[in-house]
Amino acid sequence: MANEGNIIFNIEKAKHFSEWFTEIIKTAELADIRYNVKGFLVFQPWSVLCMEKMYNHLEKIMRKKGHKPYFFPTLIPESNFNLEGEHVQGFSPEVFWVTKGGSAELPEKLALRPTSETAFYQMFALWIRSYKDLPFKTYQRANIFRYETKATRPFLRSREFHWVESHCAHASEKDAENQVHEDMATTKEVLHDIFGLPFIFFERPSWDKFPGANRTFAADVLNPDGKVIQQPSTHLLSQDFAKAFNVKFTDEQGKEKYAYITCYGPAISRIFASVVIVHGDNQGLVFPWSISPVNIIIVPITSTPILIKKASQLKQELEELNIDVEIDTSDKTPGEKFYFWEMKGVPLRIELGNKEMKNKELTIYRRDLNKKETIKEENLISYIQATSKSYDANLINKTDELFKNRIKNACSKEDISSVINQGKIARCGFCSVSKAGTPCAEIVEKELGAKVRGTKLEKESFNGLNKCVICSKKANEVVYIAREY
Amino acid sequence: MANEGNIIFNIEKAKHFSEWFTEIIKTAELADIRYNVKGFLVFQPWSVLCMEKMYNHLEKIMRKKGHKPYFFPTLIPESNFNLEGEHVQGFSPEVFWVTKGGSAELPEKLALRPTSETAFYQMFALWIRSYKDLPFKTYQRANIFRYETKATRPFLRSREFHWVESHCAHASEKDAENQVHEDMATTKEVLHDIFGLPFIFFERPSWDKFPGANRTFAADVLNPDGKVIQQPSTHLLSQDFAKAFNVKFTDEQGKEKYAYITCYGPAISRIFASVVIVHGDNQGLVFPWSISPVNIIIVPITSTPILIKKASQLKQELEELNIDVEIDTSDKTPGEKFYFWEMKGVPLRIELGNKEMKNKELTIYRRDLNKKETIKEENLISYIQATSKSYDANLINKTDELFKNRIKNACSKEDISSVINQGKIARCGFCSVSKAGTPCAEIVEKELGAKVRGTKLEKESFNGLNKCVICSKKANEVVYIAREY
Repeated sequence: MANEGNIIFNIEKAKHFSEWFTEIIKTAELADIRYNVKGFLVFQPWSVLCMEKMYNHLEKIMRKKGHKPYFFPTLIPESNFNLEGEHVQGFSPEVFWVTKGGSAELPEKLALRPTSETAFYQMFALWIRSYKDLPFKTYQRANIFRYETKATRPFLRSREFHWVESHCAHASEKDAENQVHEDMATTKEVLHDIFGLPFIFFERPSWDKFPGANRTFAADVLNPDGKVIQQPSTHLLSQDFAKAFNVKFTDEQGKEKYAYITCYGPAISRIFASVVIVHGDNQGLVFPWSISPVNIIIVPITSTPILIKKASQLKQELEELNIDVEIDTSDKTPGEKFYFWEMKGVPLRIELGNKEMKNKELTIYRRDLNKKETIKEENLISYIQATSKSYDANLINKTDELFKNRIKNACSKEDISSVINQGKIARCGFCSVSKAGTPCAEIVEKELGAKVRGTKLEKESFNGLNKCVICSKKANEVVYIAREY
Repeated sequence: MANEGNIIFNIEKAKHFSEWFTEIIKTAELADIRYNVKGFLVFQPWSVLCMEKMYNHLEKIMRKKGHKPYFFPTLIPESNFNLEGEHVQGFSPEVFWVTKGGSAELPEKLALRPTSETAFYQMFALWIRSYKDLPFKTYQRANIFRYETKATRPFLRSREFHWVESHCAHASEKDAENQVHEDMATTKEVLHDIFGLPFIFFERPSWDKFPGANRTFAADVLNPDGKVIQQPSTHLLSQDFAKAFNVKFTDEQGKEKYAYITCYGPAISRIFASVVIVHGDNQGLVFPWSISPVNIIIVPITSTPILIKKASQLKQELEELNIDVEIDTSDKTPGEKFYFWEMKGVPLRIELGNKEMKNKELTIYRRDLNKKETIKEENLISYIQATSKSYDANLINKTDELFKNRIKNACSKEDISSVINQGKIARCGFCSVSKAGTPCAEIVEKELGAKVRGTKLEKESFNGLNKCVICSKKANEVVYIAREY
């Protein structure tokens, strides 16, 4: 492609984050933003291949936990939306509406799903009969659409994104709560343990809940610059949607009851943005081994037949271990190839020249440590097997460091500003996370450009944070305040 | 689920095909047609799991052949459609239009993609510069939408379907033709060699081409009752779209030229229908091993802990071989479980009772042959490894038989009717497959309820079919006529 030329990517990420993010999307060909509908992206192979691996990991774990896969229609009738009051209010401004088929006006407007509660639960009402059908655990891989009125940003806030949404029905509030905890555990297993992303789960304040939810729990991923990005959230919908859509079951005593519903929505294309942002460095992308589109790039130093043949042979051996390997046979110089694949974030590079051939050795470059070493060719397989494991462990260690000393108490608005300006998250006393606290939350947003992210799951002691950081009334909660993307 | 009860599925497929198809979709829980938008389906786990495997096989082979994966937006501006005259004419009546975002009227109508030529090629114009960028081979996994005015039918003709579409740009007509042949080879490798579907590729007559294509080649899958279903088609778009979207490249001599474009569209959810129809029998589904949601079902004859433990141990051993295994621990009787999983089309069943435990044996039922045999437990792995291979080979042999003696010459309208009524395809002389032949083709459709499928790729000798079967003028082509779904 045109811009796969001679590129040395070098932008100081910490200082010029916005430019870094825009340029890496373009240079690494993650997405083309020139598509002619505002807020819509063309996802290019380098992001699609990574996201496909991300989908695989997530779906495999969800299926293991008993979620069954569905494909629901993309279109939802307007009347479905109107059944749950808070939901319709929350989503109406963001819905794209289909009103015509061919030249005919449709009898009813159809929503491009912004999320699928109102599609799933009418079917739950048909499928669920007895407590024996519960828990009823589903999910779908799908695209969703939101007519964002705020500024859009590739991957982070687009008008179409690629996600997984899970919907479950339960026999009791307790079972529903357990599901929410399972969803949080899944988030840890996938986002942290596989993708290497650091995050904290907060229970969102009442003014920031999912429209229609009783309680909302959301993972905030911390960026190197101290801002947070909301990633998967899981919601206790309680019985509100069940009543709206008539999702009932007969319990063990033969009594009819409404089900307790939960939903969970990891947005893969948005999580991909966090992978790019959290792991990337001044030279470009750094992908974890487990989701890198290519694990190993082989660069023959010259294109002599003997080197190409050797490269092909190595590729074949490695592919048998289920490793994605490419050989760069383009007409760039070796140096250009090195920079290019470093910028693309490929974990390992095997350099293969005449010297290596003669000594039966291989030179291996490791992207995360920016280090080269030479190994005996006969040790390649064992070297790769060991490195594929240590590689991601190293990335996870590194990102876990992000949260160390990044949370700091704040007792005044000035404190909050100062904490936030150091790239940290402020821990504060707060009057209330129910409706009563809304005016204080608005002050945080307007005056400090930050947001109350919510409370931690385990009750915390106040430790001197006894007053609301804004109104100075008695603090009933310990909350966390941060800037977000 | 409610209808996973005591079921003995038994419908004579050959005699009551329509009922059989409707009932198996419901009984095997492939899809729920009760979703409240006409022509839209809820795909249930049993079809989704199979389609996911189908996607994996197809995408893996396409990537191996150098196609790169993209995700394009679902929405396409109306103005893009208007750029290619034939295309807009062909698709306009079938497009769902998004006209509103929230409560605002959009400045331009946006189409829910019915196919994505008009989205891809504007980007090709930005990406392709030189002959060195060619061939430029892409694909995407996507949902597409068609406002069908004909009667819809689950999986076969829905208003939303799940497919893969591939778009490629080439430096010459010859290269484009080679791509079309590669697409046909891919179809054979996937649909025939993996999914076990029998088909013939025809070049479609000019009146039945893809809107905007120069030449269209399409695979007709033959059903047991002699009707055909169109499956993947591949199209030589030549330079028409390239001119409309300004897709140019500089050739080796430095001259600017328009690219030659091809596209190819295997509709997974429709191919899934062929898998159901071609392999199924009076007792229900029969899935090929390679795409069955579950390869082996283990039925412990009683639910004693020792049998359950043994079953779990076997499951674990088999899963290490990358085989999908389930244990049925429901409270149905063994007989009910047997019928249920036979209806679901699972290739193998392992029966595990006290007798088997005592003798260190396993009773294995094979769905395709409807046969049981007893093996020594110690031979399980080698037995399964051999069977997983022979199973699909047997299905493919069986379906290959479908085409034997199913093509018969016809020299008159009466001949055609008689051939078709025997569940066969008629081979006929025909005046012309260009526009000149349209009146004869209309007679075939109106009077015989059949369609001219087109010509075979290799030129055929007339062998007595010297006159057009309809107008009796000199035959210039040998065509095939069949009924379709």
